[in-house]
Amino acid sequence: MITSTPPVLARTRDVAGPAMRAAVATLLPELHGPVHYHFGWADVDGTPVPGGGGKGVRPALAILSAEAAGAPAGAGVPGAVALELVHNFSLLHDDVIDNDRERRHRPTVWALFGVGDAIIAGDALLTLALEVLFDADAPGGARAAGALTRATSEMIAGQVLDMTFETRDAVSLDECITMESGKTGALLACAASIGALMAGGSDALVDALAAYGRHLGLAFQAVDDLLGIWGSPAVTGKPAWSDLRQHKKALPLVFAWERATASERRELHHLLADGTPTEAAMAEAAALIEARGGRDCTQSFADRELDAAFRALGATDLDCGVRTELVELAHFVVERQS
Amino acid sequence: MITSTPPVLARTRDVAGPAMRAAVATLLPELHGPVHYHFGWADVDGTPVPGGGGKGVRPALAILSAEAAGAPAGAGVPGAVALELVHNFSLLHDDVIDNDRERRHRPTVWALFGVGDAIIAGDALLTLALEVLFDADAPGGARAAGALTRATSEMIAGQVLDMTFETRDAVSLDECITMESGKTGALLACAASIGALMAGGSDALVDALAAYGRHLGLAFQAVDDLLGIWGSPAVTGKPAWSDLRQHKKALPLVFAWERATASERRELHHLLADGTPTEAAMAEAAALIEARGGRDCTQSFADRELDAAFRALGATDLDCGVRTELVELAHFVVERQS
Repeated sequence: MITSTPPVLARTRDVAGPAMRAAVATLLPELHGPVHYHFGWADVDGTPVPGGGGKGVRPALAILSAEAAGAPAGAGVPGAVALELVHNFSLLHDDVIDNDRERRHRPTVWALFGVGDAIIAGDALLTLALEVLFDADAPGGARAAGALTRATSEMIAGQVLDMTFETRDAVSLDECITMESGKTGALLACAASIGALMAGGSDALVDALAAYGRHLGLAFQAVDDLLGIWGSPAVTGKPAWSDLRQHKKALPLVFAWERATASERRELHHLLADGTPTEAAMAEAAALIEARGGRDCTQSFADRELDAAFRALGATDLDCGVRTELVELAHFVVERQS
Repeated sequence: MITSTPPVLARTRDVAGPAMRAAVATLLPELHGPVHYHFGWADVDGTPVPGGGGKGVRPALAILSAEAAGAPAGAGVPGAVALELVHNFSLLHDDVIDNDRERRHRPTVWALFGVGDAIIAGDALLTLALEVLFDADAPGGARAAGALTRATSEMIAGQVLDMTFETRDAVSLDECITMESGKTGALLACAASIGALMAGGSDALVDALAAYGRHLGLAFQAVDDLLGIWGSPAVTGKPAWSDLRQHKKALPLVFAWERATASERRELHHLLADGTPTEAAMAEAAALIEARGGRDCTQSFADRELDAAFRALGATDLDCGVRTELVELAHFVVERQS
């Protein structure tokens, strides 16, 4: 089912979008080519393209986070911009690391502009993100920069685990969750709490929002893992079976592995061996993963994490409007294309 | 002439070295392979190697900077560690970007471990650097993190200019100095001032030390540019004529270009055209650059910047011992292998 886009995304994009453009405009003009292309603001030759950009989930969370602390939406904007910049730093680098040639139905920056441009553009977005926070006219700016630095560090550690898992046969469920919590949960936890942090919200509020973001991140990643095997290329913009192709040890495979017999494990290992598996082998592996509960368990995991996110919100005394938007946003994030 | 290593480097290495090891030990074990190898602490297979590490100029500056503010050497250690980490983040990424397969007479990390490992290891060092400052038990930690973020951002901009210059025929002296000030000056300015910043030194002291570091960085880079053309591979650990090979627009070429006739410019352009120039063409280009004053002008530029660094120190009321060590360090940095 395709969930309709919640109004909060349009509202927060209107607030954060111009600030995002203004921050990127401070980069050297020599970087605008790959960066504007990456954001979907321009073609490869620099011609502006209407629309563009991702769904804006992280900026929306940062702005709702400020509003949760009783501040106006504007107080969440530096955090919104910083989170979007760090997220895109990670996309630029991960596409090189994972050798991904397509993202959002377009060639990736490294595939078009070269590896060097993708690396340096990513580096520039990461430092720009922190500069935006240090430069923000808010007492919590430096504290927010510290929180974002730690979240980024955890995200990088998650990516390292993801990379090393590719060369391993088996990964435990705990290891997989640690990896996904770092890769996706850390930054969503930061997004959901950074606005409150900058607006001087209580520690209890900041912690509750961070817990909401952390669980939401895990739910989101679980859905992403489902799409990584069973998602339609037309929808995901990635090749079919992309996670199996890349030897990813994501939740469906890890759940199935735990439930598989020794001979089924040998079969999975054989089907997904080094190099690029054949289409037939990936189809067979996907069927075996599904038969051993990998698909259902991952969906249940996503559902439980979404519930945990809502419970975290329940522990706080939130304005009703903000709570509703956080809930709508969470449903949108987790139910996309699944 | 080879200048003897000043005692300050051994003294500050003893203080910063263990803290550097401790910071790196907090990285995921999965990163230790490429990172320990990069620092020269281990072989490619992880076997520890005695010695290792660079000259330690940036850590020494950071520690002297704290001492300049009247603080003990230990107060400079978080800055020393952070600067060394950021410097090595840039080396890891620049080696990929510049396609350099050797550094310090050893294969580079990307050449041995792959591009992905070099990218993610660099990312991890950058965020670790900032975490070290945020975690430091010092009131100026967050301020220092802000200063390091800005310096890193400027360094990245310098690297961007360096990359884009490679595809250009000519670059003005001003453009070249802006590039080199960013690529090398920004981080040395930060190294020379971060200790004083964290120790609560006066703005005047912080500014004077930053100016010393900025000029020292330009002097250092000018010497590096000389070595990039006329340095012996046995000494530099890089191929002969490496800057010409890579179409770098460094000071010697820029000075010579300014003084060259139209036909000499055409000749230089022809000799150093796209692709990899022949050895004979690079030798001829180097001779022409030298004949047009590129070598002498660059050496004079380095001398002037070194003088300016000393003048910046003269404007402050420094402890005599610290001043002597800063001067010795500057001579060492600029006179190496030239």
